[in-house]
Amino acid sequence: MSVLRSYVAGGWRSPSEEGAPLRDAVTGEYVASVSSAGIDMAGALAHGRAVGGPSLRELTFHQRAALLKALGSHLREHRDELYALSARTGATLGDSKFDVDGGIGVLLAYASKGKRELPNDTYYVEGDVEPLSKRGTFVGQHVLTPLHGVAIQINAFNFPVWGPLEKLAPAVLAGVPSLVKPASQTAYLTARLFELIVESGLLPDGSVQLVCGSAGDLLDHVTPQDLVSFTGSASTAQKLRAHPAIVRNATRFNAEADSLNLSVLGPDAVAGTPEFDLFVKQLVTEMTVKAGQKCTAIRRAFVPAESADDVAGAVAEKLAGITIGNPANPEVRMGALAGLEQREEVRRSLKALLAAGKVVYGDPDRVEVVDADPERGAFLSPVLLRADDPERAEPHEVEAFGPVATLLPYSSTGQLVELAAKGNGSLAGSVVTGDAGFARDVVLGVAPWHGRLLVLDTEDAKESTGHGSPLPALVHGGPGRAGGGEELGGMRSVLHHLQRTAVQASPAMLSGITGRWVQGAPRNADTHPFRKALSRLRIGDSVVAGPRTVTAEDVAHFAEFTGDTFYAHTDNAAAEANPLFGGIVAHGYLVVSFAAGLFVAPEPGPVLANYGLENLRFLTPVKPGDALTVTLTAKQITPRENADYGEVRWDADVTNGEGESVAKYDVLTLVAKEDSA
Amino acid sequence: MSVLRSYVAGGWRSPSEEGAPLRDAVTGEYVASVSSAGIDMAGALAHGRAVGGPSLRELTFHQRAALLKALGSHLREHRDELYALSARTGATLGDSKFDVDGGIGVLLAYASKGKRELPNDTYYVEGDVEPLSKRGTFVGQHVLTPLHGVAIQINAFNFPVWGPLEKLAPAVLAGVPSLVKPASQTAYLTARLFELIVESGLLPDGSVQLVCGSAGDLLDHVTPQDLVSFTGSASTAQKLRAHPAIVRNATRFNAEADSLNLSVLGPDAVAGTPEFDLFVKQLVTEMTVKAGQKCTAIRRAFVPAESADDVAGAVAEKLAGITIGNPANPEVRMGALAGLEQREEVRRSLKALLAAGKVVYGDPDRVEVVDADPERGAFLSPVLLRADDPERAEPHEVEAFGPVATLLPYSSTGQLVELAAKGNGSLAGSVVTGDAGFARDVVLGVAPWHGRLLVLDTEDAKESTGHGSPLPALVHGGPGRAGGGEELGGMRSVLHHLQRTAVQASPAMLSGITGRWVQGAPRNADTHPFRKALSRLRIGDSVVAGPRTVTAEDVAHFAEFTGDTFYAHTDNAAAEANPLFGGIVAHGYLVVSFAAGLFVAPEPGPVLANYGLENLRFLTPVKPGDALTVTLTAKQITPRENADYGEVRWDADVTNGEGESVAKYDVLTLVAKEDSA
Repeated sequence: MSVLRSYVAGGWRSPSEEGAPLRDAVTGEYVASVSSAGIDMAGALAHGRAVGGPSLRELTFHQRAALLKALGSHLREHRDELYALSARTGATLGDSKFDVDGGIGVLLAYASKGKRELPNDTYYVEGDVEPLSKRGTFVGQHVLTPLHGVAIQINAFNFPVWGPLEKLAPAVLAGVPSLVKPASQTAYLTARLFELIVESGLLPDGSVQLVCGSAGDLLDHVTPQDLVSFTGSASTAQKLRAHPAIVRNATRFNAEADSLNLSVLGPDAVAGTPEFDLFVKQLVTEMTVKAGQKCTAIRRAFVPAESADDVAGAVAEKLAGITIGNPANPEVRMGALAGLEQREEVRRSLKALLAAGKVVYGDPDRVEVVDADPERGAFLSPVLLRADDPERAEPHEVEAFGPVATLLPYSSTGQLVELAAKGNGSLAGSVVTGDAGFARDVVLGVAPWHGRLLVLDTEDAKESTGHGSPLPALVHGGPGRAGGGEELGGMRSVLHHLQRTAVQASPAMLSGITGRWVQGAPRNADTHPFRKALSRLRIGDSVVAGPRTVTAEDVAHFAEFTGDTFYAHTDNAAAEANPLFGGIVAHGYLVVSFAAGLFVAPEPGPVLANYGLENLRFLTPVKPGDALTVTLTAKQITPRENADYGEVRWDADVTNGEGESVAKYDVLTLVAKEDSA
Repeated sequence: MSVLRSYVAGGWRSPSEEGAPLRDAVTGEYVASVSSAGIDMAGALAHGRAVGGPSLRELTFHQRAALLKALGSHLREHRDELYALSARTGATLGDSKFDVDGGIGVLLAYASKGKRELPNDTYYVEGDVEPLSKRGTFVGQHVLTPLHGVAIQINAFNFPVWGPLEKLAPAVLAGVPSLVKPASQTAYLTARLFELIVESGLLPDGSVQLVCGSAGDLLDHVTPQDLVSFTGSASTAQKLRAHPAIVRNATRFNAEADSLNLSVLGPDAVAGTPEFDLFVKQLVTEMTVKAGQKCTAIRRAFVPAESADDVAGAVAEKLAGITIGNPANPEVRMGALAGLEQREEVRRSLKALLAAGKVVYGDPDRVEVVDADPERGAFLSPVLLRADDPERAEPHEVEAFGPVATLLPYSSTGQLVELAAKGNGSLAGSVVTGDAGFARDVVLGVAPWHGRLLVLDTEDAKESTGHGSPLPALVHGGPGRAGGGEELGGMRSVLHHLQRTAVQASPAMLSGITGRWVQGAPRNADTHPFRKALSRLRIGDSVVAGPRTVTAEDVAHFAEFTGDTFYAHTDNAAAEANPLFGGIVAHGYLVVSFAAGLFVAPEPGPVLANYGLENLRFLTPVKPGDALTVTLTAKQITPRENADYGEVRWDADVTNGEGESVAKYDVLTLVAKEDSA
């Protein structure tokens, strides 16, 4: 490698100057240089908006999900190459997997969740139809459409693969092009990742771009349609949040900043209990994985005052067994920090922390390493501190972004909750306890200050992904110091890239806009809709069937046949005393069964199966003598990609002789795309 | 009135200086003085956090909803008093109702939606349980808890009643105390509103506070747990968004700024059509209601070039029929602007707009008024402009916050969508057309720049609430210039006051924290749970019933009895050809009916009714010979306030002889709180 290139406006661009050297965290050797001089930032954004956005927006959510899946598979084939380069950032193989496999995992998770949880369409319809008028001619619903700008993603040095991928996946799925700016320190790994992405040819032109080096004037060019999401230090987050162009344009800004994350040992979990061991093991893991350079790592370890000595001893013992050095050596459990500057910064923070605590384990200035030079490589011993006065400010405010944590004794749950708040907002916390009541009190007590909380006990310990791991299905981010942002969280981060718009219209107009049939919109009952293949079926296609009179014999027979002899169906005197019925009523299941008998089209046809039913409400009791009519209307049609069928959601409305609805529900069916020959 | 008091820290406080005079918009007479000098802002916030927050958080969502309902009813009894004071702001009786009744309506809507859509609990559980591991011992879910700060609500002068109430309602429901700061211009009306609120004694101490006058150092004291929501000018929104304390704390900031809202006339709606008339009528309404001082009012009226003359003529004619003057005169259709300064500002904006357009109707400097002095009162003629070059910047950028709109001719849908974007983000837009295709193209085309879009046609015109009215159920706010915020939108704005926290735990721990039974958590099957009244029922209480073997005769009989003779249940050869079944299968409705027959407790008891069913999925085909077992488990228990019963959601899992789930669903029942004597 020499100077890192940026990938913007459809091609790889070298900077106009040599750039700053980046060094191997282990050996200090030159790896590459980085600079963004001469890169046309405004042009890159314009390219994303003009070329990348429209190509992505043309695709449906399911098609974009398929791109993510293909990209994930492609990158998985090149994992080893990424591991090798990752080692130069100081990472052990385990650390590299956390970064690389974790990133690929996010792509695949979004691919699969997107297919399951989003419609096969170019926009998203959210929530129920809102009735806005008495007679039902005026209704509303929320429609979410992709923003027409670029998602500018500014990443931290510690996860050069996971970082860009966890931001890019929801953006691609949303239909918004990305511009990725990695932290310079480890940008060579992100640059290689991008070469793999570009070589794959999977993503449309302009949908992902890369700027290596400083952001330059990038943010001066943001518009209200762009998004900026930042991961890094709290101080940079503040600077970016107040950037004049972001403020002027009310540009969506999301920050994820490192924070003073806590882990709590429960009073029940004294030495000798399995939870005590879990706590100690997790704390050591969090201190040493990625050499503690995780924004979610535990910085504040709260322990019952009476257990503090035991914990200190146990953690120190385990830390003493950690081999530090060159990640190429398979014995090594902890590698180097990302660079010598990082080490200096951690040492500075350690000094500040020492004002409030004493060292239990480790020497900030000396460390034994294997297969490496402890001075040329950015090595640092894990350092466990203990602050016997947990009310001191430093442990709650000073973050040493390395293998450093502070033990803090607490004496009551109330005090603990108050101390937790002193962190002023955190990404992640954990509670290690077997006591469900304590877990509940702590979780609900500290939740307002946290984006994620893990309860660790003997039941979930084996399968738990641990304190420090953000997961695609759960939100990642926290209030206050942690940046006040939210990433991941399943489809939540996809929706973050869309503009929510309330649409008000007549039912017919709203149906035309959302592509979903809405109560009150026209129906078409020319042919039985179960006779129409997906390619011919349209929303509003419907069948009205009935009436069928429910007799007293029907109810009695259904009770006997099914065994559902609930008194309201069988005992007139008891049923009359029921405050809701006042007499024998038909079983709800009888009503929906009869309705199915009315709307069914018995002969083989495009409808393959009824796979479910949703939102069933029994609205009016059905009494013997009531005549039931059912109206079934195609409400939503979702063709599946790569299958010869799709899903159809039907609105079912069962009415009685007075025209009152007695039951309403959605019937879910699978329907063939074409009529069989 | 003399000097307006603030209501902070549990009492009414007068400022330490006389303050600035506020004048009647119609007569110019002195109404009151306003100042916040000497008001302890830090103390007010501290009081809200220490006293108001805890009292609100103790209540459940349903209890808070009941407070809103009571408050709405109380204020409704004092409407006339508010109308009278409202007239002094220049408002006609219609304008006052828009403000006062609209505000009360928001309280009542949140009361009713909160009861229906939120749990009767102190926190909110969002979304499904996320499986995080293969064996199911590690799961996640999102829990939302009230922020522990104060919702600081800075309002605009144009809606002194609706403004505070639409912000306060979701905050109260969320469990977060409010501190309201009205715009000084019309603060006397908000102050009276607050006297009514305080006199009612309905809301807990500290849950609502009022600061009349300037914000002073209020924002210097915000924390990460506070929220700031602002309605007003785009320039002030920018200043507040970049406030150092807001930036430093990543304090949630929501802005709703006035914007260049558009209304579009469809090409189909030529003169003589009902849609043409609807467009003209709506434009005149939007220009004159509240004298055009609505942040949602139409500023840009896009009309097909060929209809521009017709529209100009028709609007001018209608405007000429509007009587302007003292709102006390029942003939008056348009009152005064809020003050002489406002009028000067509108005149300045009009000058800028005239660079791109000409006046079609009205004289910016002269107006005829009835029962008032046109110079002492802040009267202004409605002014309709026309800009024949719609590409000019001014009509898209300069907002005259008064009875002013500009006609802009367009020649194609594509051009229209591009012109719409020049507004750089709007609160509201409307499309008036009978053409569903045009409506769809415009709505989906301009949606990324809009918070709300209304489609007006002959079907919804009668019941439509119109272009300018934000509704509690729909989001209010828009991207970019409109502030990038979101208010209202039903429960969305309530959730905005809560911190979302991902909780990861074992199923048992998660159940303990969320109060909902989670798959994998322990079950208790000591007594049939249908025999337990709500007061004795616990989540996890369950019954396992069965097995019952489904016979071929059962399936044939069910088909005949219900009429559901779908071939997969009746025709073996055809069923074998079905790609999903490969042979006769039992009806899904038969499976759930038999399941009900298994878990039922027939004798009268606390279970009153099964009122519905949700999320039913048929997972494995049931074939003749399969033996069904059902497990029913109490999943969520919701006692109703003011009723002797509540709702219980049961998890139903029907399995076959191999232990595979064949159907899963939620059964919804009503259960008495106590066993009957």
